[in-house]
Amino acid sequence: MPFTSELLSTLRLAAGEVDLNQLDPRATLRYDGDKGSAEEELVAVGKRLAEAQERLYSHRGDPDAKRVLLVLQGMDTSGKGGVIEKAVGLVNPQGVRITSFKAPTAEELSHDFLWRVEKAVPEPGYVGVFDRSHYEDVLIGRVRQLADADEVERRYSAINEFEERLAAGGVRILKCMLHISAEEQKSRLLARLDDPAKYWKFNPGDIDERALWADYRQAYEIALSRTNTDVAPWYVVPSDRKWLRNLAIAQLLTEALESFDLDWPSAEFNPVEQRRRLLEEDPIS
Amino acid sequence: MPFTSELLSTLRLAAGEVDLNQLDPRATLRYDGDKGSAEEELVAVGKRLAEAQERLYSHRGDPDAKRVLLVLQGMDTSGKGGVIEKAVGLVNPQGVRITSFKAPTAEELSHDFLWRVEKAVPEPGYVGVFDRSHYEDVLIGRVRQLADADEVERRYSAINEFEERLAAGGVRILKCMLHISAEEQKSRLLARLDDPAKYWKFNPGDIDERALWADYRQAYEIALSRTNTDVAPWYVVPSDRKWLRNLAIAQLLTEALESFDLDWPSAEFNPVEQRRRLLEEDPIS
Repeated sequence: MPFTSELLSTLRLAAGEVDLNQLDPRATLRYDGDKGSAEEELVAVGKRLAEAQERLYSHRGDPDAKRVLLVLQGMDTSGKGGVIEKAVGLVNPQGVRITSFKAPTAEELSHDFLWRVEKAVPEPGYVGVFDRSHYEDVLIGRVRQLADADEVERRYSAINEFEERLAAGGVRILKCMLHISAEEQKSRLLARLDDPAKYWKFNPGDIDERALWADYRQAYEIALSRTNTDVAPWYVVPSDRKWLRNLAIAQLLTEALESFDLDWPSAEFNPVEQRRRLLEEDPIS
Repeated sequence: MPFTSELLSTLRLAAGEVDLNQLDPRATLRYDGDKGSAEEELVAVGKRLAEAQERLYSHRGDPDAKRVLLVLQGMDTSGKGGVIEKAVGLVNPQGVRITSFKAPTAEELSHDFLWRVEKAVPEPGYVGVFDRSHYEDVLIGRVRQLADADEVERRYSAINEFEERLAAGGVRILKCMLHISAEEQKSRLLARLDDPAKYWKFNPGDIDERALWADYRQAYEIALSRTNTDVAPWYVVPSDRKWLRNLAIAQLLTEALESFDLDWPSAEFNPVEQRRRLLEEDPIS
């Protein structure tokens, strides 16, 4: 069975309490292919994605054009970078705006937590990608108590209001939590330590954060349930298998773009007249 | 014969006066393949490019890391967008910073012409791409007399000083002029008028600029000869054949990156100790 919308709807997080233990990081969403067939399917999805993105991009410059914002969240090694390389990489990079959110700078800390996020919202006609996001402010922010409890509490509704405003402005928001198991994370961290070509991806702090796995899981469950809105839904993407993760997100992005059902912009000139100018009046023919 | 450095050195613009009529827009640079083989070769070059770019990217965060700046210039329809899609698109988009320079805004006009360009210089570890650039200020700026003659004159040396400073700061600058014939431009403009899916790429003003072909050619010849420096050389890329253009630029980018001969960053931690922490002290195993 190919990877269809029907299968993808199973990624959509149900309303209400969230129990990540009930969601299998190795699930294949009834996809009956394997790594090889998924990579072939990714190429096919990539063609649809590129076409749908070009239609979106053709409307850039129109302040009312649609936009897409793909938010990627997940524990260390869950594959945010891999998704950008393998799924987002299928799109013409000219139409993509990628922002990687690091620990906030002193200037960023002096503003509201959404200040730097607002600046990274894609323009009309573009696909924006957040590699980490404002959700860090209720994830590590909560676990590491970087803000007091009242402030963290305030942020959930601030996020919902922010995202509602974006959606009202034509931004289609797709929030993906890359769901991996603790065992898979351990194996990926070990792989980074086994290969000098991967040392640069490793940070000893990753093991410190890993020690707080249960706290992060709880922070995710709270954040997911409190910000899982109709205009900005969460998708929990099983990510222990990289090929399934990449295919699922490429498909999700493709369907979001295709759902706009965009026509090409109509000509603001008369094509017949312009042809005539070129053919009959061409000064350099 | 595959597409080698030796062939590419023929792209490098020679010092001195420039006569674009002596450079054939349909040249194949002694490449003896065809469109089909070039597309296969592009895939192979893409793998080298991706590997070399990942090595560069692994050094991001180090203020002394190298950077690459690919400047794309050329007449309308010469394929700046196509190069970004097909050649730059081979690179992980996370490590790429693309800037499209449009007609300057009122704010930009109130500053020196290099103000907006400076802000778009890629950070260490990144590949920057300029889709049009500060060269517009001595091209359309000269042809359309958007600045007076003294100011245009001043800009050539301002550009050389700017680029010399960037190069001294570790930026490898590759300037590519996408060289097309007037006949090829006409045929591409007509193609855009023949297909409603391409209307969005057409602007009646393109025909007005085309009428100034000879003036633009002269402005290019002056700009190329006056800014063709050792630290920021010009490459004139025959661009009537899209497949040759894409392959040549992908190869140029790959060779620039490979010439850095970068090692992976060394570990700032003890891998043995970190393995032990993960394996023996893992709190969640």
